Amino acid sequence: MPGVEARGRFIVFEGGDGAGKGSALSAVAEALVADGLDVLTTREPGGTPEGLELRALLLAAAGSVWDQGSELLLMTAARVQHVKRVIRPALAAGRIVLCDRFVGSTLAYQGAGRGLPLALIRDLHRIFVDDVWPDLTVLMDVDAGTGVRRSRQRLSATKADEGRFEALDLDFHERVRGAFLEQAEAKPGATIIIDAGRALDSVRPDVVAQLRAWLSASLTTG
Amino acid sequence: MPGVEARGRFIVFEGGDGAGKGSALSAVAEALVADGLDVLTTREPGGTPEGLELRALLLAAAGSVWDQGSELLLMTAARVQHVKRVIRPALAAGRIVLCDRFVGSTLAYQGAGRGLPLALIRDLHRIFVDDVWPDLTVLMDVDAGTGVRRSRQRLSATKADEGRFEALDLDFHERVRGAFLEQAEAKPGATIIIDAGRALDSVRPDVVAQLRAWLSASLTTG
Repeated sequence: MPGVEARGRFIVFEGGDGAGKGSALSAVAEALVADGLDVLTTREPGGTPEGLELRALLLAAAGSVWDQGSELLLMTAARVQHVKRVIRPALAAGRIVLCDRFVGSTLAYQGAGRGLPLALIRDLHRIFVDDVWPDLTVLMDVDAGTGVRRSRQRLSATKADEGRFEALDLDFHERVRGAFLEQAEAKPGATIIIDAGRALDSVRPDVVAQLRAWLSASLTTG
Repeated sequence: MPGVEARGRFIVFEGGDGAGKGSALSAVAEALVADGLDVLTTREPGGTPEGLELRALLLAAAGSVWDQGSELLLMTAARVQHVKRVIRPALAAGRIVLCDRFVGSTLAYQGAGRGLPLALIRDLHRIFVDDVWPDLTVLMDVDAGTGVRRSRQRLSATKADEGRFEALDLDFHERVRGAFLEQAEAKPGATIIIDAGRALDSVRPDVVAQLRAWLSASLTTG
């Protein structure tokens, strides 16, 4: 996302289910606010009222009604709204945007996980979302077994109605993990890989330290 | 739409606002049912529960919230669902499907009317909707002034909440009409153009007669 609007920094947290993205994002947000930075936290799917309504439509149907192609179209529409109404204005105002999931998750879940062509997902992103990519991706990497086990514990604790995004088989989650790692390899300068298999208490300070270092360098040079 | 599933016939009624599509479609449906044919009537946007929910989302926002690209994505998603769950099964069962609007309306309204690239609309249709096109399009052709005048009369009579689809300016409606006529010229063998500027009482028997003639020839040869 070059040009005048790139005054802020667009930082996306990606990773499989149970990788602790939400926890890491909160820790980073808290630390950066303490540093005096202007931080916006947001998430996908969702991020706008329209996006939340689309998310509700997709979840309500529990995977049985929506065609995979329709689902990709709706997710892309939600992303268009999110970028236009939330992310771009925040970046233009110089804010640090911390976003839980973005197009990398669509490539990993709908692409590698469910078999939709990656080129198609990228084409839609290029055409409809103006090819907006993060300045930095924080990949919370955890092996699929650990991630699924953590997700199950959380779901049974919260009864969260996210079944369709979480409840696929281990092989699926391994494909998703592999896709995230491939994305990271393709953009080594724009990715921080965090070993998220450790206890969350040791992951959080590690993420915060690496983010502070990256941001300090980025805001100095850029 | 070649192949085994093309046992039925897919007939789409297109035209600008106030052209009397709905009235013509009802008259044809009634006549074909009287002829003993198995007829399904359906419409866009809508046509499935999911499509109706997307339509409600689009209308609720009254054009101010949704980006044009998002709107195209949502309409395409609704069409995917409509084709997969309603149109294709009906055609496979040998039914005559009469549909009020289809991709021709997207090309005319979102494309010619609002300026989205026609190639993009066609690409989405090809990729996500398997390039399903009508066996026959009935183009209800009326000059833009007459169509808008009729629409206004109907709206003031019914207070229907379709403002955003109807209330654009005359120049817009002329572009839409021109687009429909171009589509008809491009597929002369698959289009019947009806002069819909006449009184509805004389239009209806004309549409019914032309449809019966086309269908009789099509079901005999095909």
